[in-house]
Amino acid sequence: MKGNLIVGQSGGPTAVVNVTLAGVVEAAMQSSSVGEILGMRHGVQGLLQEDLTDLRRQPAELWTRLKETPSAALGSSRMKVTDEDLGRIVEVLRAHDVRYFLYVGGEGSASVVHRLVRAARERRYELSAVAVPKTIDNDLAETDHCPGYPSVARWLAISVREAGLDSEAIGVVDTVKVIETMGRDAGWIAASTALARERAGEAPHLIYLPERAFDQERFLADVSRVHWERGHVVIAVSEGVKDARGQYLSASQRAVDRDPVGRPQLGGATQVLCDLAASQLGLKARFDKPGTIQRVSSAMASPVDRDEAYRVGTEAVRAAVDGRTDVMVSIVREPGPGYRSSTALVALTQVVGRTRTVPPEFIAGSGSDITEPFVQYLMPLLGGPLPSYARLASTPVPRKMS
Amino acid sequence: MKGNLIVGQSGGPTAVVNVTLAGVVEAAMQSSSVGEILGMRHGVQGLLQEDLTDLRRQPAELWTRLKETPSAALGSSRMKVTDEDLGRIVEVLRAHDVRYFLYVGGEGSASVVHRLVRAARERRYELSAVAVPKTIDNDLAETDHCPGYPSVARWLAISVREAGLDSEAIGVVDTVKVIETMGRDAGWIAASTALARERAGEAPHLIYLPERAFDQERFLADVSRVHWERGHVVIAVSEGVKDARGQYLSASQRAVDRDPVGRPQLGGATQVLCDLAASQLGLKARFDKPGTIQRVSSAMASPVDRDEAYRVGTEAVRAAVDGRTDVMVSIVREPGPGYRSSTALVALTQVVGRTRTVPPEFIAGSGSDITEPFVQYLMPLLGGPLPSYARLASTPVPRKMS
Repeated sequence: MKGNLIVGQSGGPTAVVNVTLAGVVEAAMQSSSVGEILGMRHGVQGLLQEDLTDLRRQPAELWTRLKETPSAALGSSRMKVTDEDLGRIVEVLRAHDVRYFLYVGGEGSASVVHRLVRAARERRYELSAVAVPKTIDNDLAETDHCPGYPSVARWLAISVREAGLDSEAIGVVDTVKVIETMGRDAGWIAASTALARERAGEAPHLIYLPERAFDQERFLADVSRVHWERGHVVIAVSEGVKDARGQYLSASQRAVDRDPVGRPQLGGATQVLCDLAASQLGLKARFDKPGTIQRVSSAMASPVDRDEAYRVGTEAVRAAVDGRTDVMVSIVREPGPGYRSSTALVALTQVVGRTRTVPPEFIAGSGSDITEPFVQYLMPLLGGPLPSYARLASTPVPRKMS
Repeated sequence: MKGNLIVGQSGGPTAVVNVTLAGVVEAAMQSSSVGEILGMRHGVQGLLQEDLTDLRRQPAELWTRLKETPSAALGSSRMKVTDEDLGRIVEVLRAHDVRYFLYVGGEGSASVVHRLVRAARERRYELSAVAVPKTIDNDLAETDHCPGYPSVARWLAISVREAGLDSEAIGVVDTVKVIETMGRDAGWIAASTALARERAGEAPHLIYLPERAFDQERFLADVSRVHWERGHVVIAVSEGVKDARGQYLSASQRAVDRDPVGRPQLGGATQVLCDLAASQLGLKARFDKPGTIQRVSSAMASPVDRDEAYRVGTEAVRAAVDGRTDVMVSIVREPGPGYRSSTALVALTQVVGRTRTVPPEFIAGSGSDITEPFVQYLMPLLGGPLPSYARLASTPVPRKMS
């Protein structure tokens, strides 16, 4: 089958999703089956409005530069796609003779691809539709990890290592520091802060994930203990942490705080924890909430992540022109010493509707830390050693005063 | 005069204050006037408790590694020093035969040095006491800029450039993004986010500094205008922004939120702005508050800042062994094309009790932006070009649907 190809980016931007776009376009340019290479502006939202861009007419040097440019160059979206929308999308694709549909995103995007396959069949329109994985949340099923996650993990490992040194220095004043990470339903991102530690006992001292119900009494006991042991406390918490009733810890309950698909706007967990430490323990607490900055740092992106983000793009094109449809490209970790990965194709029925949370073997029994197997899982994805920082040796001067 | 030297670090940690420490120690090791080289643990707080460390006995490789290690290796503090404390400090210095006193910090630390000079004189103890500048706030008088500031500025320029790309991509969903920077009394740090722009119109679109009273109506009009023009709005705001009555914009008014010298704990301005945008304009708003992470990034530190941070350390030793006292090392920008700096000594009476806020010629008439002269002032301090990111060219595809 010969036809045009279209690609879109969806969901939250990342440090490497433009690398995937470059991979898609460069592979499509190599393929004799692909005619036009079209881009959706702001994902299916632009597709519905026929807001398309001709990617063959971009300046040649763009694709090289884009491999070092974070965010999502086509523009992203996060819209609820109705069945009516799907019918219209098929007609837009037909009008532009698009036979290869590539959508880069997380589970929501995979779901759009899956439903589009059915809508195209119902309308007797031949289409190869492939989902390309991208989510810092790392919560897609059937893949070892998701492009975007290694880079946010590397950013957090380095930044929390540095912020931990900051607390060591000034913890006599700012005793408790809470660092809020992204991660709505899964704690992969918060867990990655554990790699900030060069040695046991270093920050973060406590890590709270959405996989374990937040217990206020236990939290206060944890903070008291670390404060007693170390004099200062660094806490990493996922924005998606919930209490035993399944309620998000959030200071804000306003109705306006909803995203377009109806999920509550997160981001209040840190304030709740700071308030608890201050009011119940009398400790001075402050928070760092790096927000969107954490997910789009090009300077600290993982080289492994860049490579794999490119490869899922090229493999998606290969799959589509081979006539594969209703599949997602996945990353497979090869066995053996040293880290190597390959790609595979998985059926979207295995991906849609599922969220891969952090498994129990990666979470410490205490519920406020991760395990060594998690470190072994994540470390190779960071693509090399983190900066190693120096501390003064203990060389005390004998006292001379009474 | 031959005697021992002591050095301490005070106030908030930075990316380069350990470079200053290395400069002090390496210069002291070269000086035939200096006997022991002592470090205060946690500044004057440790000095009062005679908690000192012998810096000559540190491993030789430490000083090289410390030049790449952020935070404050000696430990920092932020304590209110009483006259009684000063008397005790003189006695501790006497007991350890310390004749050279170097204190690295901001205005508060300079004030301690200034008062210590007087206390030593009253107690007939010969002492050369020198303040070494360090503050990300960049608000010390009588110096072109302060070590630490160029590095936080570089971190913010890069991170806001990246976060701006993020908003361009996903602004259709998350329309307003507020980025809170540090900076209590002066807006230098918030102003530095302007260097994120490669071209006019890029993020940040609005910048609010403590130097201008925050006007709610004007803010809402500004946000509406940018939203209408660009579809998304990126705002940088200093944590120290105040309203016309001089009150901090803060959601939290708890009494516990005070630092040891009685200043209110800041950090609520962003939530106030997000709530305004959401409730008054119906726009979805979120905030990034990088907090302490912004001030201790080694990976993004400015090479100019590193060089100068080292030099203020070596020059402080030189001044002290030359018998200078009650002075601060300052950075002087040399005239002429290209950036060059030298150091000078300024009397502490010119520094203590003063705060150098952003001058009117650096603030736009609108009150919500900076001027080109500010860009010219800051750009050379960043020590080289920032990463340049690519955007798609406009290559629209003709519509085919009705």
